[in-house]
Amino acid sequence: MNAVHIGVINVSDRAAAGVYDDVPGKAVVETLREYLTTEFEPVYRVIPDEQPELEAAMIEMADVHGCCLIVTTGGTGPAPRDVTPEATEAVCQKMMPGIGELMRTTSLQYVPTAILSRQTAGIRGSTLILNLPGRPKAIRECLDAVFPAVPYCIDLIEGPRLETDESVIKAFRPRSA
Amino acid sequence: MNAVHIGVINVSDRAAAGVYDDVPGKAVVETLREYLTTEFEPVYRVIPDEQPELEAAMIEMADVHGCCLIVTTGGTGPAPRDVTPEATEAVCQKMMPGIGELMRTTSLQYVPTAILSRQTAGIRGSTLILNLPGRPKAIRECLDAVFPAVPYCIDLIEGPRLETDESVIKAFRPRSA
Amino acid sequence: MNAVHIGVINVSDRAAAGVYDDVPGKAVVETLREYLTTEFEPVYRVIPDEQPELEAAMIEMADVHGCCLIVTTGGTGPAPRDVTPEATEAVCQKMMPGIGELMRTTSLQYVPTAILSRQTAGIRGSTLILNLPGRPKAIRECLDAVFPAVPYCIDLIEGPRLETDESVIKAFRPRSA
Repeated sequence: MNAVHIGVINVSDRAAAGVYDDVPGKAVVETLREYLTTEFEPVYRVIPDEQPELEAAMIEMADVHGCCLIVTTGGTGPAPRDVTPEATEAVCQKMMPGIGELMRTTSLQYVPTAILSRQTAGIRGSTLILNLPGRPKAIRECLDAVFPAVPYCIDLIEGPRLETDESVIKAFRPRSA
Repeated sequence: MNAVHIGVINVSDRAAAGVYDDVPGKAVVETLREYLTTEFEPVYRVIPDEQPELEAAMIEMADVHGCCLIVTTGGTGPAPRDVTPEATEAVCQKMMPGIGELMRTTSLQYVPTAILSRQTAGIRGSTLILNLPGRPKAIRECLDAVFPAVPYCIDLIEGPRLETDESVIKAFRPRSA
Repeated sequence: MNAVHIGVINVSDRAAAGVYDDVPGKAVVETLREYLTTEFEPVYRVIPDEQPELEAAMIEMADVHGCCLIVTTGGTGPAPRDVTPEATEAVCQKMMPGIGELMRTTSLQYVPTAILSRQTAGIRGSTLILNLPGRPKAIRECLDAVFPAVPYCIDLIEGPRLETDESVIKAFRPRSA
C-alpha cells in the first residue's frame, strides 16, 4: 500500500519572506499527528498570498503527490491580499459549504469577527482541500469541530481509510458505510 | 383552478437500476401528504446521478408540468457521482443559501457528517427546487426544519397557496403577506 | 482627513415610486448614528428593484464617493423583482458568506421565514457592501448581530477607523490588530 500523503500549506506573505516564524503550518502538522493513528507523510509548503502560486501548489499536492487531504492556513480574510478561498474554488470540482459554515459558527463562540472569515472547503478528484484560519488557537478550534467528518469524506472520494486516536478525536462513519 | 403539482425526484444510480427499493422518494411523497391539506398531484421520477438527465427532469417538471415545488432526494454528498446541487444551480435563476444552511444545522444535531451535505435550494420561475438528503430519517428531519417557510416562499414566487395541517406542521406567513 | 462616507440604499419599487414612505433607509441611518461616534456623512438613495440601477449606485458610492460601507435594505427575498444579492455579487471582488449566515441565524430566532432571505455581503476595493432585510425590526436585529465585526473589517480593507459608542454596540478588534 502507498504511503498516505497530507498537504499542509501555510499561506502568508510574512512567513514566506521569513519575517514570521512558520507557526501555523507546524501547528496543523502537530494536530494531525495527535489526531491520526494512520501513518502519514506531510507535504509541506510556505507560500505567499499569491493566487497562481497557491493554485499551483494545491494542484501539485493533489495530482502529483496524491494527497488525500490538503489543509491551508491563513489568507481567508477580507484584506486585498487574502485569496486562499478563491484559489481553493478555482482548483476544486465541488465545493463543500457546510465545512466553512461550521468553522465560522465554532469561531463565533470566541470572537465576533469570525464572520469575516471566508474559509471554505472543496473536492479536487480524490483530494479534500480545507481552509483554516491563520491563528494557532483558531486553527485547533476549527479542526476539532470539522475533523470528525473528514475521514468519512475521504472514504467517499475514494481516498485512503484514515483512523484516528479516539481519545483525541472520534471519526464518525455512518453505519451503512 | 388548475391542480397543484409537486415534483419529487429520487436521485440514485441504484434505485434507477432497480437494485434498491425506491424508499426515499416514497418517503417524501408520504411526508408531503401528511403536511398538506391542499390537494396536489405528485410528478414522480427516479433518476440516476447524471447531471444532464437531472437538469432535464427539473426543467420539465417546472416548465411543462408547472410544479410549484420540486423536491430531490440524494446525490448531495462529496462523492464523484453526487451532482444534485450542481444540476439544481444550473437550472435556477436564484439560489436560496439559507435553506441548505438550516438543513445542515439541523442534521448536525444528529450526525457530525452533516457538514458533508451540499444540499441547496433555488428558484426557477415560479418553482422552488429543494434538495434533501437520501436517508429517510434525515429527509424527515430536514423537511420538518425548512417546510414552515415553504408555503410563503411559493406565495412570493407567485405559485399556488399551499395550506398545511397545523397539527403536523405550521406554515408561517408574515402578517403583511 | 477626509470625511467618512457611508452609503445607504433603500431598494424598493414602492418607496422609489413614492407609494411607501422611505422608512427602512431612514432606520438604517438612525441606527448608524446611534452606533458610531466617528462623524460620517450619509450618501443616500432610494432605488427600484432594478439590477443595473442598483449596481450603478453601488459603484458610484464606492468609487466616486469613497464610501467605506454601503448598506442596502430590501430586495433580498425569492420574489422575481428581488435582485439585491445579485447586484451586490456583480460589483464585489470578494464575497463574505459569514455575514449573511449570521444574519439569517439571528432572524431565525424570530421568524421561520428568515431562511428565505438571501442577504449577502462583499468587498469592492476599500468598501464593504452589506445587504439588510427590508423590515425595520429585522434591520435592527441583523445590524446588531453583525456590526461588532464591521469596524475591523473596514480596517482590513484599508478604510477609515470607525469608533462606536460602546454603550450601544461594541466593536471588536483582535489584539494583534
